[in-house]
Amino acid sequence: MAKIFQRAFGLKSVLRCTKVSAARKLIPLDSPSILATNHFYLSKNCTRTLATDTAEKSKSLPPERRPFSRVTKEDLNYFQSILPGRTITDPDLLESNNVDWLKSVRGSSEVLLRPQTTAEVSQILRYCNSPLMNNVLGFDTVSGILTCQAGCVLENLSLYLEEKDYIMPLDLGAKGSCHIGGNVATNAGGLRLLRYGSLRGTVLGLEVVLADGRVLDCLSTLRKDNTGYDLKQLFIGSEGTLGVITAVSVLCPRKPKSVNVVFLGCETFEQLLKTFQLCRGMLGEILSAFEFLDSECMRLLNTHLKLSNPISDCPFYIVIETAGSDPNHDSEKLHNFLDEAMNTSLVTDGTVATEESKIKALWSMHLPAGPGHEAAPGQRARSVVGYGHVGDGNLHLNITSPAKNPALLAAIEPFVYEWTAQRRGSISAEHGLGLKKRNYIYYSKPSRAVSLMGDVKHMLDPKGILNPYKTLPDHFR
Amino acid sequence: MAKIFQRAFGLKSVLRCTKVSAARKLIPLDSPSILATNHFYLSKNCTRTLATDTAEKSKSLPPERRPFSRVTKEDLNYFQSILPGRTITDPDLLESNNVDWLKSVRGSSEVLLRPQTTAEVSQILRYCNSPLMNNVLGFDTVSGILTCQAGCVLENLSLYLEEKDYIMPLDLGAKGSCHIGGNVATNAGGLRLLRYGSLRGTVLGLEVVLADGRVLDCLSTLRKDNTGYDLKQLFIGSEGTLGVITAVSVLCPRKPKSVNVVFLGCETFEQLLKTFQLCRGMLGEILSAFEFLDSECMRLLNTHLKLSNPISDCPFYIVIETAGSDPNHDSEKLHNFLDEAMNTSLVTDGTVATEESKIKALWSMHLPAGPGHEAAPGQRARSVVGYGHVGDGNLHLNITSPAKNPALLAAIEPFVYEWTAQRRGSISAEHGLGLKKRNYIYYSKPSRAVSLMGDVKHMLDPKGILNPYKTLPDHFR
Repeated sequence: MAKIFQRAFGLKSVLRCTKVSAARKLIPLDSPSILATNHFYLSKNCTRTLATDTAEKSKSLPPERRPFSRVTKEDLNYFQSILPGRTITDPDLLESNNVDWLKSVRGSSEVLLRPQTTAEVSQILRYCNSPLMNNVLGFDTVSGILTCQAGCVLENLSLYLEEKDYIMPLDLGAKGSCHIGGNVATNAGGLRLLRYGSLRGTVLGLEVVLADGRVLDCLSTLRKDNTGYDLKQLFIGSEGTLGVITAVSVLCPRKPKSVNVVFLGCETFEQLLKTFQLCRGMLGEILSAFEFLDSECMRLLNTHLKLSNPISDCPFYIVIETAGSDPNHDSEKLHNFLDEAMNTSLVTDGTVATEESKIKALWSMHLPAGPGHEAAPGQRARSVVGYGHVGDGNLHLNITSPAKNPALLAAIEPFVYEWTAQRRGSISAEHGLGLKKRNYIYYSKPSRAVSLMGDVKHMLDPKGILNPYKTLPDHFR
Repeated sequence: MAKIFQRAFGLKSVLRCTKVSAARKLIPLDSPSILATNHFYLSKNCTRTLATDTAEKSKSLPPERRPFSRVTKEDLNYFQSILPGRTITDPDLLESNNVDWLKSVRGSSEVLLRPQTTAEVSQILRYCNSPLMNNVLGFDTVSGILTCQAGCVLENLSLYLEEKDYIMPLDLGAKGSCHIGGNVATNAGGLRLLRYGSLRGTVLGLEVVLADGRVLDCLSTLRKDNTGYDLKQLFIGSEGTLGVITAVSVLCPRKPKSVNVVFLGCETFEQLLKTFQLCRGMLGEILSAFEFLDSECMRLLNTHLKLSNPISDCPFYIVIETAGSDPNHDSEKLHNFLDEAMNTSLVTDGTVATEESKIKALWSMHLPAGPGHEAAPGQRARSVVGYGHVGDGNLHLNITSPAKNPALLAAIEPFVYEWTAQRRGSISAEHGLGLKKRNYIYYSKPSRAVSLMGDVKHMLDPKGILNPYKTLPDHFR
């Protein structure tokens, strides 16, 4: 849990390191903005990767190291004094915390800190810069508003709320390990966005520690509040680059009394879109998800995850979820819709699930294939897979190769971004720009907007110590 | 329409004037930040009011005039050259445009400008500073996303969408005259917030003209976009003090096939809250509004608007609206809920409306009494009325007196704000801080947050020319 926790909070990023010569050490070791560092990691890993990627002239190459300080024994002593037993330097633990899930990015932090209170976060950021704060602070059963610390695991919050007949307004594949603070910091979308809207509407308040260590209390639990500017919006989706979220209040919907999942097959993408329109009209207020996968995605699910297609083979598949307060009404709406979709030949085959186990089985058909395939030896060279959240206008494109293939990557990435930009789409609908897409921001945002983002960053983090190298393009340093 | 248009866009505020001595005229007449002015208005009205209110030591007294320039003949010539026929100086038209609906605040602008395009707005802001831009720019029938100019009247947008089987995600009493740009600039809540959420979630994109005349294009039509910071959020609810909104894209829900309104009576406020909980559970996804009014509000509606109580006399009344996709299902849910509420004695009386005329009649019971009463001669000295949006945790308190009564006002305003602050409530849930509440912001926001709001204002409008004297407290000038 600790590593995911840390990842969600950008702690690893805050503790991102750099090798610096004494002459470039602009920030004194005892300054509030000192950063943890491990130059051995850097010289061994980052530098090599840098050399390779520079040759590829990729825009997502590892960023040039900035003049941050190194972790000293004195720093470690200080961290151990304020976080006894929660200042981790074990190499194995650090190794697993320095790599992302896709094993595509490597950090080089030498220290892992596990603070438990807002005051501790503030202390750390004051000394250099960021959370296991996983307590529910309150829940109002009349309004359905939950207030909790940012380190709460999404699934734990869901289980807590379920006893009270409520649910979280978001659901993600990673719910068992991701933290609500990280969800908010990355403005996570997930499976329920179609029904309950984005975190920009459901998050009612935030507590944030600013770059200089000051605590900003915007932890309101009000559905409506128009007293001045809505500062919390600055931190939602800013990927930890403007402040560290330490607590969250969120508006939670009632737990639905009935849930159904339908798996359908379609001949064309146009029919799929027409099916979406029909279902928006006929299922109305009970529609909670509309997802799709293509035939190649189905083939991979068959081959690698041993999941069998529950219906006959089709070019496109649809997963529809309904959630409502009356099982009979929901079932009637669903069957009326299915009758209409079949009679008008929009869909060619389908199956319905109402029991939880069958629902889970159908939902598993929609999971991404995951990084395992990329490394699987001896499999077919390349596959192109499309799936995702049609209801939110947000699709995933996964292209896999048996081994790392820089030439293939170089052929895909500019092309996909250009195609998306021509249609005024987002090159990062769900996951943020992070490290890899920071220099591609201009494909989706005009230069004036990016320039204003730079002003916002400078206003809130003038020394650039919060999650450096992320979100904003390199020339903003 | 022109005056409302202007109000919604903060144009009047942008053209807010001040009397200055030549020595204090910091901004040259030909500078980009020149403001329209009328010192006769000010010396005649504002100065007198200032003197009176200073004696009352009210925090909402008219702000001290800032060293803005005056409108010259050259300025008028310029405006007439870029806006022929749309540069208004007619005293009668100006008079009606210089007063708010409640007749509680008076401006002193000498010119009313009516631009029609973003380029014109940009020209005006370049010359000094702010929109009849009322065209629908596009509507996507698959996603339900509407893009329009900021000058579109909310009701016109609703009528446009209704033909396409969609509705706007917000509805207000003022829909016949208010503009979508103003709705967004003030983060208007309204009657549908309980169901469709706030504009922070449903507004997908904005085009904004910045204080220096540059156009910021954030007019995205994407439900999900995490490419950098979500800059549009800065302008939602900032009351025109950070930029002028010129176009909006908004996510629209499907038009419900069935609407019902119920009017109920309750003995205690606690029973009213229990009724809300019951109805949230039993009506679930079809609940679209839960509003209340008290017995004194009902008395005033009887006396002044000749609206008769449709049920027996009660201390508290509830208006519940349902909106769904199946009339039979909705009706069944509603009657199950009403049976339960009656059987458990939560409500003592009630009536249901399904026809549009009866629905309108029941909704009219919820309207505020309006400013007419304040001036009605010979009526009883004082009434205290409570009503509002229980479903959103946002209530209205109207206290009326037959004539302006500064002593009464002074007794109410600190008390109500202190009471609200003690409960961590918002002293302005719906309407923004504007001119009158600007100095009360600390009752709802900590000083650190207000200070950061000042930084945001300074970043986006360093000369303070956008809607001066509003939202932020006086010491931020």
